[in-house]
Amino acid sequence: MVRISSKDNPLIKHIIKLNKSSKYRRVNGEFIAEGLRVCRDAALSDAKISALIITDSAQDKYAEDTALLSDKADKTYVVSESVFEHICDTKSPQGVLCIIKTLDNPFLFGKIKSNGKFLALDNIQDPSNLGTILRTAEAIGIDGIIMSADTCDIYSPKVVRGSMGAVFRVPYTVVSSIAEFLSEHKELNSYAAVVDSDAYSVTEIGFTEPCVAVIGNEGNGLKPETVESCDKKITIPMKGRAESLNASIAAGIIIWEMVK
Amino acid sequence: MVRISSKDNPLIKHIIKLNKSSKYRRVNGEFIAEGLRVCRDAALSDAKISALIITDSAQDKYAEDTALLSDKADKTYVVSESVFEHICDTKSPQGVLCIIKTLDNPFLFGKIKSNGKFLALDNIQDPSNLGTILRTAEAIGIDGIIMSADTCDIYSPKVVRGSMGAVFRVPYTVVSSIAEFLSEHKELNSYAAVVDSDAYSVTEIGFTEPCVAVIGNEGNGLKPETVESCDKKITIPMKGRAESLNASIAAGIIIWEMVK
Repeated sequence: MVRISSKDNPLIKHIIKLNKSSKYRRVNGEFIAEGLRVCRDAALSDAKISALIITDSAQDKYAEDTALLSDKADKTYVVSESVFEHICDTKSPQGVLCIIKTLDNPFLFGKIKSNGKFLALDNIQDPSNLGTILRTAEAIGIDGIIMSADTCDIYSPKVVRGSMGAVFRVPYTVVSSIAEFLSEHKELNSYAAVVDSDAYSVTEIGFTEPCVAVIGNEGNGLKPETVESCDKKITIPMKGRAESLNASIAAGIIIWEMVK
Repeated sequence: MVRISSKDNPLIKHIIKLNKSSKYRRVNGEFIAEGLRVCRDAALSDAKISALIITDSAQDKYAEDTALLSDKADKTYVVSESVFEHICDTKSPQGVLCIIKTLDNPFLFGKIKSNGKFLALDNIQDPSNLGTILRTAEAIGIDGIIMSADTCDIYSPKVVRGSMGAVFRVPYTVVSSIAEFLSEHKELNSYAAVVDSDAYSVTEIGFTEPCVAVIGNEGNGLKPETVESCDKKITIPMKGRAESLNASIAAGIIIWEMVK
């Protein structure tokens, strides 16, 4: 166990950069999980923890959990409360943070051919939405998630936290373009989620396996080429003067209709 | 049209307090809507606009909309960009903000007896969740929302924004306690949403009108007395290691199952 007392310590600077920059995360192959619950989720999902950073008070307060985490981590560092406040991304930190190796849970494409219900995300931009979608996909029972390269980074601190640990457990893959992915996987029944009263209602679709529902950007919806690459257009019928649903709610209802 | 150039102007201080304090909003009977879209929604829903605050550039850029708003508002004030940044609650402000009189859209309780599908919220704490739930309730077609007094303030800037204007259109009422409300409205078929594998699946329930589904707090779920006051317990069946759904996603799926 090593003690760090300065904000200028290279590891502290490394953590701050991992929190801030998706490019830095990609280059270093690491990301941050903060908070007891999400760190526990990481450990229980056999994620590779390169470092555990804790405060003295967290070590006292969560003795059993921090011992488990310390066991799983390559190294453990103890920092002062003020240093921890400097590196954390939350308002009321618990004093527990892990540096985690980029996950290796891409799903097997061979599996798609025979079965499975999947979700594809085309340019989702809000990390809170992505985190919520991962959490919902796991809870309701989606087999895997395909994300376009321009979807926000799955390793951003807000996604990791909002997913409530699902990021460690839901199989996923990142592809350069959803349209391209679908053109290479014609065996998938594909459904483009759109706001269009002429589209099929989600209740009319059987979602025969293997299938994928495709959700688009919060403001602009799906790219035209993505819609074109799908077999059918589906929609959630709406009433009143509302123009659309929040992307994570739309995804939630579609996942629910697919799987229930 | 009046020009305000100082941050010390009493109206500017009034706006800041309306943004920050639910108590101040209650005492003054006013709240803030910020951004062109939500201000337009307010005007089109015949909300009473006591003041419109705009920047010069917003007046140029959104000439038609700001003219409509200025027409509806009791008074219009033009402020500098720096003053606007001081009063706004968003990161990339459009330079359009309205002070709005507290709404008067409580729904008629008499109506409940004969028909309607309602949603009750018991101690929802996150303004983003409340905003999303209002937006979803309007889009899918809920007849009214009952909120416990300890639910977060519907007039908080985040709720107003997140609701995408639904706050101006969805009938709602605030009651001191959901349990008490239900004991006074035995005619309502009431369903407590819980995480409990022994509860009825939402797919097993017919949601016969008049009915109400009750959603609880993000971390703690429903209060025991609220569950007891309901006719039945309902749940969204879950898979995997996920322990629960985000409150707004759970509400979304339940609203969907009630209304579809």
